[in-house]
Amino acid sequence: MSESKIPYKIYLTESEMPQSWYNVRADMKTKPAPLLNPGTGLPMKPEELEAVFCSELVEQELDNDTRLIPIPEEIRNFYKMYRPSPLVRAYCLEEKLKTPAKIYYKFEGNNTSGSHKLNSAIAQAYYAKKQGLKGVTTETGAGQWGTALSMACSYFGLDCKVFMVKCSYEQKPFRREVMRTYGASVTPSPSTETQVGRKILAEHPGTTGSLGCAISEAVEVAVSNPGYRYVLGSVLNQVLLHQSVIGLEAKAALDKYGVKPDVIIGCAGGGSNLGGLISPFMGEKIRGEADYRIVAVEPASCPSFTRGVYAYDFCDTGMVCPLAKMYTLGSDFIPSANHAGGLRYHGMSPVLSQLYDDGYMEAVSAVQTDVFEAAEAFARVEGILPALESSHAIRVAIDEALKCRETGEEKTILFGLTGTGYFDLVAYEQFHNGTMTDYIPTDEELESYRRRLPKV
Amino acid sequence: MSESKIPYKIYLTESEMPQSWYNVRADMKTKPAPLLNPGTGLPMKPEELEAVFCSELVEQELDNDTRLIPIPEEIRNFYKMYRPSPLVRAYCLEEKLKTPAKIYYKFEGNNTSGSHKLNSAIAQAYYAKKQGLKGVTTETGAGQWGTALSMACSYFGLDCKVFMVKCSYEQKPFRREVMRTYGASVTPSPSTETQVGRKILAEHPGTTGSLGCAISEAVEVAVSNPGYRYVLGSVLNQVLLHQSVIGLEAKAALDKYGVKPDVIIGCAGGGSNLGGLISPFMGEKIRGEADYRIVAVEPASCPSFTRGVYAYDFCDTGMVCPLAKMYTLGSDFIPSANHAGGLRYHGMSPVLSQLYDDGYMEAVSAVQTDVFEAAEAFARVEGILPALESSHAIRVAIDEALKCRETGEEKTILFGLTGTGYFDLVAYEQFHNGTMTDYIPTDEELESYRRRLPKV
Repeated sequence: MSESKIPYKIYLTESEMPQSWYNVRADMKTKPAPLLNPGTGLPMKPEELEAVFCSELVEQELDNDTRLIPIPEEIRNFYKMYRPSPLVRAYCLEEKLKTPAKIYYKFEGNNTSGSHKLNSAIAQAYYAKKQGLKGVTTETGAGQWGTALSMACSYFGLDCKVFMVKCSYEQKPFRREVMRTYGASVTPSPSTETQVGRKILAEHPGTTGSLGCAISEAVEVAVSNPGYRYVLGSVLNQVLLHQSVIGLEAKAALDKYGVKPDVIIGCAGGGSNLGGLISPFMGEKIRGEADYRIVAVEPASCPSFTRGVYAYDFCDTGMVCPLAKMYTLGSDFIPSANHAGGLRYHGMSPVLSQLYDDGYMEAVSAVQTDVFEAAEAFARVEGILPALESSHAIRVAIDEALKCRETGEEKTILFGLTGTGYFDLVAYEQFHNGTMTDYIPTDEELESYRRRLPKV
Repeated sequence: MSESKIPYKIYLTESEMPQSWYNVRADMKTKPAPLLNPGTGLPMKPEELEAVFCSELVEQELDNDTRLIPIPEEIRNFYKMYRPSPLVRAYCLEEKLKTPAKIYYKFEGNNTSGSHKLNSAIAQAYYAKKQGLKGVTTETGAGQWGTALSMACSYFGLDCKVFMVKCSYEQKPFRREVMRTYGASVTPSPSTETQVGRKILAEHPGTTGSLGCAISEAVEVAVSNPGYRYVLGSVLNQVLLHQSVIGLEAKAALDKYGVKPDVIIGCAGGGSNLGGLISPFMGEKIRGEADYRIVAVEPASCPSFTRGVYAYDFCDTGMVCPLAKMYTLGSDFIPSANHAGGLRYHGMSPVLSQLYDDGYMEAVSAVQTDVFEAAEAFARVEGILPALESSHAIRVAIDEALKCRETGEEKTILFGLTGTGYFDLVAYEQFHNGTMTDYIPTDEELESYRRRLPKV
């Protein structure tokens, strides 16, 4: 089909939607390192993980071999409520940039949670329901994951307990109300509801909380209440598996029009979106069937890929979770106060970490004022107010397109637009008022966090 | 095609998208009454209207004869950025309600402005640009229209001056930031920038503003600055014309699957969404080609159809605009302070008013706690957080579906879901906390506003 016939938005039909998730681990030559028991230093056994996570999710977490895992019908039905998500040809952005590049983005924001997080939330809620559980617990920072999980639990009639980092709870009351609309209970963390919360409050009376503390509280509630398990929205292998639906749809849509991307760009925090977007392309690349440049974009203020170390580390500040081998800044790392939005996790998905270490992908970082400039330029011509997280990918996609303008190359660029920025408007306001600042941690600072890495 | 094959979401292809707007006035047996000059009591001449509105829009405003008006290519290209909007089969809601009814909704919220308002905003901006204007002025209450117009003006490089009702400006800073993202200037109204604003501030020093005052300020700035015109997001004939794209797409999507709705439901404030949604169906009904029950839903706290009078009235509180014959509560009417969201205009589109008066449609009202109950039930199963305005239609659609459960009738229900509720979360919070109240004006109150109707 001729390129001029490519529509602004490519929607798959329901029958073209993926029937299985794609497990990139099956194709990886070096498998991601196993999770370790922090007490024994030995790989976590399934039965150990099942105290915290749903059984079938533990299976998915540990399965490095099965390439395609069927998506249960109940999940596919839920996906139909908000998927397929559009693959958008950014004609207006191309025109604005006067670039010969062809830009596509996979937009995951057209659901109430406002992001791709729902793809894994519904899967995790489904397996919890199937196991006969009463409910699940989780943590949320900015609130995207908590909202997605609330929606998913409401659909399956599961109880949902969300520990929300206290400063976000207070600063983002709207996120909290969306979660309440879906019937979730939302507790500011640290709270007096858990031992770890009470301990932290006693030691740091005025603390406004952190993601690491909220994780520890959520895990404690899950393991100490019969019928509950803990769920997590990023980093884990299972999450990347569920999120592969993004990449599978994107690839199917491009294949329909015979388009091959030259470069694939995604923002990276814990890796859920990037891992999902690139999965099927990465599979082809590993198998030697195609070559793609794959670029992770992270905030300069939380640079786990570009300035972290590849080592075993704790997944949470409270050190109650297993150890994971990943690019990490150290589990005590917290981005500076002026860091807006998500992408603030200290580590990176073990799958992506291994792929990065093996040279299958690149990583770059961007400072947030540059990111906002790109976000605003994008919003003005593409009619979508992008989330801060997504805007990291926009920044680098625009930079690549501008390089093409210089060189005259007609590269095809694909990037992931993970969500909408309706809850990021405090930061947009700072940007408009010129009060937004950038922060790049010093080498000394980063070194101080590294000294606390566990010895394995 | 068998009903079981109907997908969750029906998207038209780009080539199936409407090429022309449909002007229902061409089919109306009694045409809507003309706008009158408030000074002379005579129908407004084109040249009088052109001092306020763009020339080509004046033509559209006065054209009661042309059935199909081609959509210019530039507008169709912009439409492709966020249209076609999905026609959703509400399988999950049907299941939840255990109804034999088949429920469809046309969802207009998948763009940054979060509502259908963009359909007319881009058209009005286009004609302003074509006329060589520098910019446009407008008013906005809750901010949906102002946001839509900001996006449209940004696309065509037009200056955009928005007067935002002061209490909304202060209570909804996020809406303001979205407008600023698109480069609009946003002024709280009443302001010191206009004569009418200064006059109102002198008379009522502590006022938090009203839609009527903001309209007067925007009109004053438009007529006193060369190269500027005033634009409006509802009520006008031209707006209903542009919004017909909603109904045309909805009908084309239903026709593809051989589905005929029995009842069509839309929320009604000034009438922009309802008028757009029902247009092509109403055309068939007037021409005797099909029969549909058509239901307008309005807030019990602002009941222009159900408790207003059909008479000539001012379109704004400042009485600077032409007189329109419409169902009205009186131009001084302001909904009580506990009224949440939009749908707060004192009058109703002259086209819809005439159709209602001629018996082609019904109207019902709903109190807001009932509306929120429906909104929450919908959000939980359909994965969209609905705008308050849209939720009026959801309320009645659910009521109709529940009646079908009683009677066993398999009615097909179509309703308009105008937008998302991301900026309505203060009201959602009141609903969750049980502090939301309802208000139904007394007959005496309504009578007091009617006494101020102009004598024509």
